[in-house]
This record gives sequence, structure tokens and C-alpha cells, in this order.
Amino acid sequence: MRPPDSGGTGAGDAGFVHPVKVRWADCDPAEIAYTGRIPNFALEAIDAWWEAVVGYDWYRLSIDRGYSTPFVRMEIDFLSPVTPRHVLECAVTPLALGDTSIRFAVTGRQDSRSCFRGEFVCVFVTTATFEKTKPVPDILALIAPHFPDAASERVETT
Amino acid sequence: MRPPDSGGTGAGDAGFVHPVKVRWADCDPAEIAYTGRIPNFALEAIDAWWEAVVGYDWYRLSIDRGYSTPFVRMEIDFLSPVTPRHVLECAVTPLALGDTSIRFAVTGRQDSRSCFRGEFVCVFVTTATFEKTKPVPDILALIAPHFPDAASERVETT
Amino acid sequence: MRPPDSGGTGAGDAGFVHPVKVRWADCDPAEIAYTGRIPNFALEAIDAWWEAVVGYDWYRLSIDRGYSTPFVRMEIDFLSPVTPRHVLECAVTPLALGDTSIRFAVTGRQDSRSCFRGEFVCVFVTTATFEKTKPVPDILALIAPHFPDAASERVETT
Amino acid sequence: MRPPDSGGTGAGDAGFVHPVKVRWADCDPAEIAYTGRIPNFALEAIDAWWEAVVGYDWYRLSIDRGYSTPFVRMEIDFLSPVTPRHVLECAVTPLALGDTSIRFAVTGRQDSRSCFRGEFVCVFVTTATFEKTKPVPDILALIAPHFPDAASERVETT
Repeated sequence: MRPPDSGGTGAGDAGFVHPVKVRWADCDPAEIAYTGRIPNFALEAIDAWWEAVVGYDWYRLSIDRGYSTPFVRMEIDFLSPVTPRHVLECAVTPLALGDTSIRFAVTGRQDSRSCFRGEFVCVFVTTATFEKTKPVPDILALIAPHFPDAASERVETT
Repeated sequence: MRPPDSGGTGAGDAGFVHPVKVRWADCDPAEIAYTGRIPNFALEAIDAWWEAVVGYDWYRLSIDRGYSTPFVRMEIDFLSPVTPRHVLECAVTPLALGDTSIRFAVTGRQDSRSCFRGEFVCVFVTTATFEKTKPVPDILALIAPHFPDAASERVETT
Repeated sequence: MRPPDSGGTGAGDAGFVHPVKVRWADCDPAEIAYTGRIPNFALEAIDAWWEAVVGYDWYRLSIDRGYSTPFVRMEIDFLSPVTPRHVLECAVTPLALGDTSIRFAVTGRQDSRSCFRGEFVCVFVTTATFEKTKPVPDILALIAPHFPDAASERVETT
Repeated sequence: MRPPDSGGTGAGDAGFVHPVKVRWADCDPAEIAYTGRIPNFALEAIDAWWEAVVGYDWYRLSIDRGYSTPFVRMEIDFLSPVTPRHVLECAVTPLALGDTSIRFAVTGRQDSRSCFRGEFVCVFVTTATFEKTKPVPDILALIAPHFPDAASERVETT
């Protein structure tokens, strides 16, 4: 797993790539990864992004910090089949940071071929009540620089 | 599983509902079905639609008939959490039938609450080559009446 | 899902059968259900047994009643491939009820052919502490009659 | 993934360890990896063993070489809960190589605590017919040195 760009440029952050080893277990009788597995690969990449950027994966973010980021929308275009023959490089690109929401693009590539492109919207909630909340300052400070509109958002959300 | 409307009215077919028993196994530490399971519930409902309407589920459609229907796009809005407390009623609504593609809406409801709404686009391919193809006449005759634009499509595709 | 034998005979209870619809999603490139799915089918059948016998599935047993039944052992012999062509009839047979443990056999059959036979051992714990505990009397009263040594166990455990 | 011991000593090979990153997606409401996921972690480790030792994972062994290794038995003792807090180190130990079968132990450890210990038996079959077969000489030559009884087996099976 390559680390994300440190710092953040205000121009977005396409640098985080999470490699997935696709396996026999993921494949259906068509000898390709089952469609229902693809969203799971993308979600795994976003979970890995949290761990790399904030230092907490979803499990520890929820249990140790009390924040969860449930999904409110996903859309995925499936561009070419995914197989175990090559690593699936899942690139996570933060797109937008709202007051209580966060949007990512995730693209999957194998052997320099685009396999899927998706967008995912999550909201911040407190684990205890599942009510929307702003991210706490220390987490916000870590994620905000990775968004293209980081400067303006930081003004808005802090 | 309720059977689909027989016949088809030319006005679409929202009658097919596939019940899913959500289980502990589907749930994450937030005590709700994991986001990555939801697309799988919707896909299962579409697989069940094929079995009910054509008499072949995806497995037998692919292996016995030589046709597969890989997905090229999915989009899902997650409206409220899914839990094991109620049956998840997945309604499959055929939306459009193209020359070599098919589009469905799938909505999930629990306890009269909307949980998700998604749209899914598949293409027809031959299992052997994975190349796009029109559905064979006997399968087309079974699925076409379930689409709102069935009459015009039937002219176009046969 | 056929209901379990009501009453309990003191001679065991092989009457509970949980049907599983195996799907394309469960199958691997060998065109059979992936090995890693089989334990999940058996576990689903045990979850269904709890719901049928006690009125609580694992989710509600854990969250509403405060009891969980984590597994300490499983063993499965895979006898013949599982496919989507036939319903997988999973028969759950209670084998032994200890002070804080419970043992089941689960067999899977398709088209009158044995597909797998497994044994599973769970312990009773409180959800809050995950410490072993005896089942509370009202739950014990519901499950005990389904075990072959029900009479003696009831003496021992109440 | 640490590479297996090269060479093989005739005394078995406990050196192959496949790390699994357990995730939120793997966990159930008890905040631990769901029981049904554990066999899948062990199977993934065995798949990784094939790739490391033979140069083919299950997918390519089946599709490119025409051999599959379906499971005929698994048994697992669950010793302590698995969580996302630590890497799950899955050690694969070849135990016995028969004429047409192969037996492995897989143990899972997190944070120097044993989480599970399992044994798994597979048979060699040709993908085309699913009939038992001896492994072909080049594959046998690669796997045989990793078994404790490698010398005698090699006499028997070649």
C-alpha cells in the first residue's frame, strides 16, 4: 500500500492506491470476479484510505473514536472484467468534503486496463446515536488537506 | 417469492418481490447489514427475477443456455439501515430493454420503510466469447412483456 | 422452512431442515459452490434453528436478550459438490447440551445426495462480557427438549 | 508474505505465513470476525501457499494447468476472537502428501495469541472431469519437498 501524498496540494489527491489480490474465492463460473465483489473491493480501498490518512480504519474509528461513516450512495461503472491474473490497483481520490459528508472516487485497474470507476458518498455520524455530526477537529485536520477544495471547506467546517 | 405479473401490460412490471432474510452474518459492528452486502441483496433479487420470468437463474442461463448478463453499471442510494429484524423485500422493476442490454430498478423495503433504491444495467453476452449479443427469441419473448416499452422494443429487437 | 418437531422425545430431533437456495454468487470457476461458502450455509441453518426453536435468531438473541453463542469448533466432511441446480436442504440435529455449551450436526443434501456433514460446538456467553454462562431458564426450557439426552441435562443444568 | 523455506528438509515446512488484514467488513455485531469468515481466511492462506510454492494460485492452477484441489474435509478449533486490531498471521504447514491427496494445517495468530488451528484435506482432480488424479511430475517436484514424509512419498507417487 503506497502512502497518500503527504501535505495536500489543494488540487486533490489521487495518490492513494490500495492493491487487492483477487482470488479464486472472488470468482464466479464466468471465471471473473463476481459483480457483487467489486463494490467490496472499492469499500476495502476506502477503509484502507482512512487507515492511511487518519490512522484509524473503520473498525477503530467506530469503536475507539466513536465515529462511523455510513454510505448514502454508490455508483459504479464496470469497464472490464476483474480476474486473479493481476493485482487490482484501487485508487482512492477524495472528491469533496461537506459539512457532514465526504465523497470519494475509486477506480480499479489491472495490468494498465481500467476495470471499474465508482463514486461513493458517506456521512459522518456518531457511532452511539447514528446521528449526523461534523468530524472532530483532529480528524478534520488530517483529512481536509486531501480534498481539492480543502481551503474553502476548512473555513466552512471549522 | 411472489410470481411476477403474468402477461405484461405494456406499462412496466413492478410486481416481482424477492424476500431476503437478513442475518447476523450480514451485519457489521454497527449492528446493521454491511454496506457491501446491499448490492449483493439487489443482485440476488435480479437473479431470482430471471429464474421467475425466464425459468433459468443466472447459473443455468449461463451453463445450460450459453448466455450471461454481466453488469456494466450499478447505482444505489442507501436510504435507511437494513437489519435482521424484518424481511428485506426487494422489488425488481424492469425499466428498459435495449438491443443487447437490460436495465432494472431494485428497491429494498423493511417494515414499510424504504432502505435502498438502485438501478442496474446488464448486457447480454454469449458465455463462450463474452461478446455482446441479442437475446435469443424464446428468452426475448419471455422478458419483453415485462418492460414498459415492450411493444416498440419487440419491433426493434426481433 | 419446516418447523422442528414440537415437544421433543428424549431421542434427539433430526426434524429441522433449513433450505438454502444456492446461487451463481456462491459458485466459483469450477461451477460449484466455493468451499468457503459451505460453512456459511451450515451456520445459516443453525441461526435458523435458533429462530425456529427459541424465537430469537442470533441477532436478536445477542442484542435483545444479551446472549451469544460463539463457535469453538467446526468440522465438515465435503461429500459431493453443491450447485444451484437443487435446493440445499440443511438438516440441523442437536447432539448434546452441556452446562455452557451446545453441539449440533448439520448435513446438507441436494437432490437426495449427501453433500456435506458437519459438527459444530458453540458456547453460551453473555454478549456484554463474552464470558461463559449457562443459558437462562426460559431459553433452556425451549432448547433442552430437542436434545437426545434432554432429561438428564435438564436435571443437571437447572 | 514470507516465502516458504526453499529446498525442503524432509522434516516438514512450517515457514509459510500469509498475513490477512482483517477488516470492518469481516466483523459481526460482536465486534469480532464472523465465524464464517475464519475458514475463508484459512483457505486464502492455502491458495497463497500454492502460489508461493508452485507458482500458480488456484485460479491459474485450474484454468492454465487443468488441475483443481477440491476440499474433502476441514476441521477448525476457534481459540480466541479475531479482530481488525492486529494482522492475522496464517501459517500453512503441509502435513501429508498422499497419492491423490494433500493435507495442511493452518494456524491463525494475532498479536502472539493463537486464534484458530485447523486441518484441511484436498484431493487432486483434473478440472475437466473432476476425477481424482496424481499431480503431474513438475508440480509434484515443487510441492513434495515441503512435506515431512517427502522422501517416501516421492518414491510412492512418481
